[in-house]
Amino acid sequence: MVDSPSFLDEPEDTREAIMKATYQALCEHGYAGLTIARIAEDFEKSKSLLYHHYDSKDELLLDFLSFMLEKFERSVPEGKSKPPEKRLETVFERALAPEDWDEGLKFTRAMTELRAQAAHDERFREHFIDHDRVFRQALVETIEEGIEDGVFREVDAEQIGSFIFVTLSGGMNQMATAKTGHEAAILDELERYVSTVLRND
Amino acid sequence: MVDSPSFLDEPEDTREAIMKATYQALCEHGYAGLTIARIAEDFEKSKSLLYHHYDSKDELLLDFLSFMLEKFERSVPEGKSKPPEKRLETVFERALAPEDWDEGLKFTRAMTELRAQAAHDERFREHFIDHDRVFRQALVETIEEGIEDGVFREVDAEQIGSFIFVTLSGGMNQMATAKTGHEAAILDELERYVSTVLRND
Repeated sequence: MVDSPSFLDEPEDTREAIMKATYQALCEHGYAGLTIARIAEDFEKSKSLLYHHYDSKDELLLDFLSFMLEKFERSVPEGKSKPPEKRLETVFERALAPEDWDEGLKFTRAMTELRAQAAHDERFREHFIDHDRVFRQALVETIEEGIEDGVFREVDAEQIGSFIFVTLSGGMNQMATAKTGHEAAILDELERYVSTVLRND
Repeated sequence: MVDSPSFLDEPEDTREAIMKATYQALCEHGYAGLTIARIAEDFEKSKSLLYHHYDSKDELLLDFLSFMLEKFERSVPEGKSKPPEKRLETVFERALAPEDWDEGLKFTRAMTELRAQAAHDERFREHFIDHDRVFRQALVETIEEGIEDGVFREVDAEQIGSFIFVTLSGGMNQMATAKTGHEAAILDELERYVSTVLRND
């Protein structure tokens, strides 16, 4: 559930260039296969700078995760030009049917490995607590806006936001770690859920 | 979504004793902190046997995962004495509201780490493909039985089984890696979903 990363086309500064190299190395090697040396391979600009800034791969990855979350947070207001139901649909599709399927799958796999670090590492857990709060809040606000507009029923937006959030996370977790091919059924059922439980008609 | 492990009370043979020691070490140390030496600490019976059987921690853990899945598969027919809706409820609660919360959370964290190995390790991925098939199938058969009994509507059992499966996985993934405390809302919404979409009344 990461916004299409525009910094990949044209990094605006050194930090964005480092983040681009990290993104590419993560897609290529995953968390387990990643080393700062491998990120440096994609980051010809200034290898010594990379080593200077980050003591360990985890430190760099935690910075990468914050960077991606900030990018997402900044993209939320722009998304508000679309009507609420359309916005939900876009989130569903970005999560489970990324435009570039191969790259989307690689990135989802790497993020799944990063998230699993949170099971034993407080620093990752703190990040994912933030991450989940921000994504859930974006879903909840979309549902609340739909209620205000009269297109959604008077539902418990917090509860439904939590429910949709874990369904998307579970779908991404499954595609990253087991069989792909169930995404279409999940998307279908999510849309049926929205039309049965949320839509006011 | 693992059946309450009865082998923990009274292991019937050496393999069950090894599996019990593995389960305990996993809950205590998680995947990242686990070593064969640490499992051997809990397995006083025959340390050399443990080293003789398994070349690496991953090999032992893959055997542990198969063992747990076999246990679950054998428990499915017994569960069929309960009516379908009650069975779904039991699955939901085992996943998101384990009776022993602390142990359930530790085990869910360890399983989340094991599952994340599948992002880069084919052997783990093969296991989780099997795992997901078996659990999804149990959900689908429960839904189909409810349709035959007339308590559930004529729905697409495969699609709804997939949907419920990823919602539970996502809920467990969240409790393992981010903030706990959203489980009650997810359980509530799952029950509301069952009564809105499935129940024939």
